[in-house]
Amino acid sequence: MSITVVGSIALDSVKTPFGEAKEALGGSALYFSSAASFFTPVSLVGVIGEDFPRGDIDFLAKRGVDLSGLETAKGQTFRWAGSYEYDMNEAKTHATHLNVFETFHPKLSEAHQQAEFLFLGNIHPALQREVIGKVAKPLAIGCDTMNFWIQGSREELLKTIRLVDIMFINDTEARMLAGVPNLVKAARAIREMGPKILVIKKGEHGAMLFSGQTVFSVPAFPLEDVFDPTGAGDSFAGGFMGYLASKGDLNDRVLRRAMIYGSVMASFNVEKFSMERLKTLTKDEIEQRFKEFKKLSHYEELEA
Amino acid sequence: MSITVVGSIALDSVKTPFGEAKEALGGSALYFSSAASFFTPVSLVGVIGEDFPRGDIDFLAKRGVDLSGLETAKGQTFRWAGSYEYDMNEAKTHATHLNVFETFHPKLSEAHQQAEFLFLGNIHPALQREVIGKVAKPLAIGCDTMNFWIQGSREELLKTIRLVDIMFINDTEARMLAGVPNLVKAARAIREMGPKILVIKKGEHGAMLFSGQTVFSVPAFPLEDVFDPTGAGDSFAGGFMGYLASKGDLNDRVLRRAMIYGSVMASFNVEKFSMERLKTLTKDEIEQRFKEFKKLSHYEELEA
Repeated sequence: MSITVVGSIALDSVKTPFGEAKEALGGSALYFSSAASFFTPVSLVGVIGEDFPRGDIDFLAKRGVDLSGLETAKGQTFRWAGSYEYDMNEAKTHATHLNVFETFHPKLSEAHQQAEFLFLGNIHPALQREVIGKVAKPLAIGCDTMNFWIQGSREELLKTIRLVDIMFINDTEARMLAGVPNLVKAARAIREMGPKILVIKKGEHGAMLFSGQTVFSVPAFPLEDVFDPTGAGDSFAGGFMGYLASKGDLNDRVLRRAMIYGSVMASFNVEKFSMERLKTLTKDEIEQRFKEFKKLSHYEELEA
Repeated sequence: MSITVVGSIALDSVKTPFGEAKEALGGSALYFSSAASFFTPVSLVGVIGEDFPRGDIDFLAKRGVDLSGLETAKGQTFRWAGSYEYDMNEAKTHATHLNVFETFHPKLSEAHQQAEFLFLGNIHPALQREVIGKVAKPLAIGCDTMNFWIQGSREELLKTIRLVDIMFINDTEARMLAGVPNLVKAARAIREMGPKILVIKKGEHGAMLFSGQTVFSVPAFPLEDVFDPTGAGDSFAGGFMGYLASKGDLNDRVLRRAMIYGSVMASFNVEKFSMERLKTLTKDEIEQRFKEFKKLSHYEELEA
């Protein structure tokens, strides 16, 4: 089944202790669609400025991503600049220039509206709701958000969350949104706001799935070198939603495996700056790492 | 096989957002032996003052813990006072009174010296080394430590670590000891200091095992109420070492299961103040939670 993703497309300038990237590909929609495209057909809806280096996303078209929803507007592409310290857990934002993103209203073609899966990248919650109103009858709507909207647009966000099936959020934001420090309690509170399925991302500590009576915990893949965590959350969501769409199902076994594929995609994402690793990644590498996750988290009964 | 544990025995005064305990049972040796006693015979070596409420540890004797190495010295029992904020990740120490612990030199009987497994609770590394010199031919020596010794007695600690087979340390301390922020690199550096097997404890984020080529990651059991994290690390070590000793083996499958038993014991430990939960715990409850860990971390192949 197919996914439509609506989100940001950016030129990111990122500095980490291991180097820096200037005006490199970024934004939730690009990371998500790149990761999801390994699993299922993806349509990307977003806006770029006249200055955007179109050739740089040829690799997405080659991977079958439908770019017909990529609107070019008069002006400059959305830009973000930030840096990470050694712990790599939180980005420090140096500059955000919305540019063409400021007046963006997503246009969904007939085909985009019919997608079985919808993913709303981290954009203004009112804009996310606008998109939800345009899709016909999706099997599942996934949604990401961030502290900025939780603190600044809480009421709008709550209205959007009510309509969402699968919520992606990091642990700090989950505590902030729910207003309780305990993560299990926070998960319950957020699920009472709407989403039946909740994924809490914990960076280097992995991720947790809450669905029905299930609590499922996945470790992060142990990496010696994390070069740039930018986009890891969107790559996770791309692997997760992409796998769900490929199965067209939300049962417990599929959801658990989706968590692993999400973790696999996030782990590749952070190995290089920007989308460099996702560009060269192969399906074989993905399946190989999927298998390695089993060694990382499974244990066996002993023989008697 | 049997374990000898040498460590602190304390009267702890602890305050958390959920209440407080005054002069309650504490110390690495008590937590460890209580947890390990569910799996294997344990001998406790430590010192108490004349004021220690002996009756309060009758439950250990009933569980078969050999208390012949419990020395009563003139003076007051070791006391610690601390508090935790909502995040429960780090204790704030308000007071430490070593009292009888200040001049303590562990005396190991013939039987203690013959134990196949030795655990060195978090005490001065020179004292830990003194104990190592007294044991005959242990199959494995486990050791815990803390930031206080890493910062204040680094050279002594390094000399001790060199002699240790299994090191238990939390993630912050691992980074501090190794001097690198990346946990996989820190693990490698610490294993090069001596211990073939390394367990990194991450509190609410679970724990990681490094052994041979194995990296194994265990989530923490998701609890809605964590009343008092004091002793969780020692209960983890008790479950881990206790299970190893019960199997008399350090192979990969046994080690992985030991990680789960460690996590199980730590998760019970934090459900009530001091050792209240460990006192009433049963083997059935332990096995039940062990099974629940599987649901928390395992995923299956899909049918074709």
